[in-house]
Amino acid sequence: MKIIQVNENVSLRRDPDSGNEKIQAVVDDILATVRHDGDEALRAYTKKLDGAETDALFVTETERVEAYESLEDEAVEALQQAIANIRDFHERQRPQSWMTTKSDGTILGQQVTPLDAVGVYVPGGKAAYPSTILMDVIPAQVAHVGRIVMTSPPDETGRLHPAVVVAASELGVETILKAGGAQAIAALAYGTESVPAVDKIVGPGNDYVALAKRAVFGQVDIDMIAGPSEIVIIADDSARPDYVAADLLSQAEHEERATAIVVTPSKTLAKKVSAEVERQLEDLPRAAIARQALADYGAIYLTADLSEAVAVVNELAPEHVEVLCEQPFAYLGKIKHAGAIFLGENSAESVGDYFAGPNHVLPTNGTARFSSPLSVDDFLKKASIIHYSAEALAENHENIATLARLEGFEAHARAVDIRRKRGGPKS
Amino acid sequence: MKIIQVNENVSLRRDPDSGNEKIQAVVDDILATVRHDGDEALRAYTKKLDGAETDALFVTETERVEAYESLEDEAVEALQQAIANIRDFHERQRPQSWMTTKSDGTILGQQVTPLDAVGVYVPGGKAAYPSTILMDVIPAQVAHVGRIVMTSPPDETGRLHPAVVVAASELGVETILKAGGAQAIAALAYGTESVPAVDKIVGPGNDYVALAKRAVFGQVDIDMIAGPSEIVIIADDSARPDYVAADLLSQAEHEERATAIVVTPSKTLAKKVSAEVERQLEDLPRAAIARQALADYGAIYLTADLSEAVAVVNELAPEHVEVLCEQPFAYLGKIKHAGAIFLGENSAESVGDYFAGPNHVLPTNGTARFSSPLSVDDFLKKASIIHYSAEALAENHENIATLARLEGFEAHARAVDIRRKRGGPKS
Repeated sequence: MKIIQVNENVSLRRDPDSGNEKIQAVVDDILATVRHDGDEALRAYTKKLDGAETDALFVTETERVEAYESLEDEAVEALQQAIANIRDFHERQRPQSWMTTKSDGTILGQQVTPLDAVGVYVPGGKAAYPSTILMDVIPAQVAHVGRIVMTSPPDETGRLHPAVVVAASELGVETILKAGGAQAIAALAYGTESVPAVDKIVGPGNDYVALAKRAVFGQVDIDMIAGPSEIVIIADDSARPDYVAADLLSQAEHEERATAIVVTPSKTLAKKVSAEVERQLEDLPRAAIARQALADYGAIYLTADLSEAVAVVNELAPEHVEVLCEQPFAYLGKIKHAGAIFLGENSAESVGDYFAGPNHVLPTNGTARFSSPLSVDDFLKKASIIHYSAEALAENHENIATLARLEGFEAHARAVDIRRKRGGPKS
Repeated sequence: MKIIQVNENVSLRRDPDSGNEKIQAVVDDILATVRHDGDEALRAYTKKLDGAETDALFVTETERVEAYESLEDEAVEALQQAIANIRDFHERQRPQSWMTTKSDGTILGQQVTPLDAVGVYVPGGKAAYPSTILMDVIPAQVAHVGRIVMTSPPDETGRLHPAVVVAASELGVETILKAGGAQAIAALAYGTESVPAVDKIVGPGNDYVALAKRAVFGQVDIDMIAGPSEIVIIADDSARPDYVAADLLSQAEHEERATAIVVTPSKTLAKKVSAEVERQLEDLPRAAIARQALADYGAIYLTADLSEAVAVVNELAPEHVEVLCEQPFAYLGKIKHAGAIFLGENSAESVGDYFAGPNHVLPTNGTARFSSPLSVDDFLKKASIIHYSAEALAENHENIATLARLEGFEAHARAVDIRRKRGGPKS
């Protein structure tokens, strides 16, 4: 791996990927067609793009039974434990409606209500990502979303990966649409004869899915458009090079555009990590992908001290940060921008990716400067509550009218004046 | 006003306004020029578009003193009381960082941190909207945002409206840029020699501002793109027609595209409200605007009962709802989608627009289905915290590795395996 001394001339942030106009035109066409032709268009695109005949648009009970039969028991048990952990963590996020009252009769507050309906997109292809289903569905369930529709592209036999079907079934997801790409996003956003429209769409996908989500944003809400995954590891001399290397590779194996960075004041560690990465790459199944990612977006940054290492993290605002230092908690308060912070040498990123409980849907590409992990909040909305009594209005109506007239809104002022002129209110 | 019997053939929702490609091209050009030429471009656009020479890009101390001199004392005092109320309400919204611990040493949690820097856009023109400043700046301050930059277009003398300067000064806003339109948004998003870039831009503006905000979204975060303002009033026979009419007009005077709707089962009330609206329009300064809004987007919907009236509200998901019924709190739990809910006959919308405390920046155009009022949360972000002990990893590493391998990510599995193979961890 490249070892780079940090100074003011080193540019840390990577440029965002630019959009693709050709794909956008295809996406816009698919969206319009599904919006107009509904289920018929959905079936036609699934046949054309996924090569699958789907008589039944939704996963059947038989398919669920078959999925369970083809999955190892230990995988089902691991999913169940992960579900319990993720549910426990997200239940701690749930906000309450609240009110504040004053002795003049005023009641102010905030009413929290769940979204009516949410769509969860799950990528297809050869691999399956059941962890994504857990991370997207559980916060929606904890928020008490009324209706959850999952969708994922079928393979050529018209089926979904068994791990996807089992993960959804373990969560009690009743509606699993077999459709992918922009056509699935269109069905969720606009509704079809058999797919009722939702209010928000979450979940990762390829460029078609991302552009389709961006296009329907406004009609419905969407979660973030995720960029390539990133890890930055802050390490001192106490860190084990083999752990650091293993964690870098677990990020780099995701895809060629993944970012894996170490920031350390230790030249010794830097050299050892670089050697360890080579050693561990030797027998890694996805070594080609990881090598490419490390070549393009990997680096070991040398800093003057750990303070400067933290400053590099804050400049990068990465998706994942690991603190592999002797006193990891000493740095928690200093890390200003990150999606998830892994403290101490036993807290490998994999622990959080799959199992510990916090969400793995995290802000990428520097957006941790202003964005947060997916949470229960993303499936709730709030309404302000305002109740003024006759007494409260009598006390305050002149101030309100003054402010309204300052802005030139006479009718706003009269709306409070009229309530003062006409004797006492009824209630 | 139109009185319409609600049935399944009545279409309630209005279509979103479509974008404007001509304006977009102008906006894109301004953004690129300011990004490239910085302060020089900012000054040139301010001269060209606002007709103002601005030697000093920022409001000076002298301008602040002059602003106070030209504002009535009662206006300053009303602003001060509004500030106190809005601050009190928003302080109740502030979330805490939290942690949960397990006896195996696991620590999981959520760290809450403020955004580093926020830009607040304030519209200019003949009128001033100090209430907007209060609603945008106070939640950012309560969140402890590091740096707040306000910006507003100057008039031809190069000055801002005194109410704008006083409102900002009362809040302690130190940096007030004198620039408007897309050029101001560009300066905030990209930074110039004298304007440091921010992480998020909030505040309403004209079409140029809205399109510029949309264009820089991703580079920075933005608040919602607000549509025309809306009110829906649920009323029964107990409601006073003059109050209902006054509140409709306070919405309709905003602009020709504003929506003002009554939903009631009472034909008697419907007729009285319609007559009252005409009567109150007679001497209203902004009567022409209000008349146009009511003609295009106003309606009195007749429903079978109050339950159906609430259903109409939930279908519309309006920005503001007033409940002018005998038992207003009986309907609170039934209102699923609304930005702000005003309960009872003394709770005119003006009370919330200016003074009570809750934010007046609210979701419009049906987006209350999935969006919330502007709040302290919009100026904070969260990071997950994950700490696993050696004991916790020993207990769980097999499940984690199983899930990683189920997804085909061998390096993820090895990152936990390697920590189990190598003796006990150091700490």
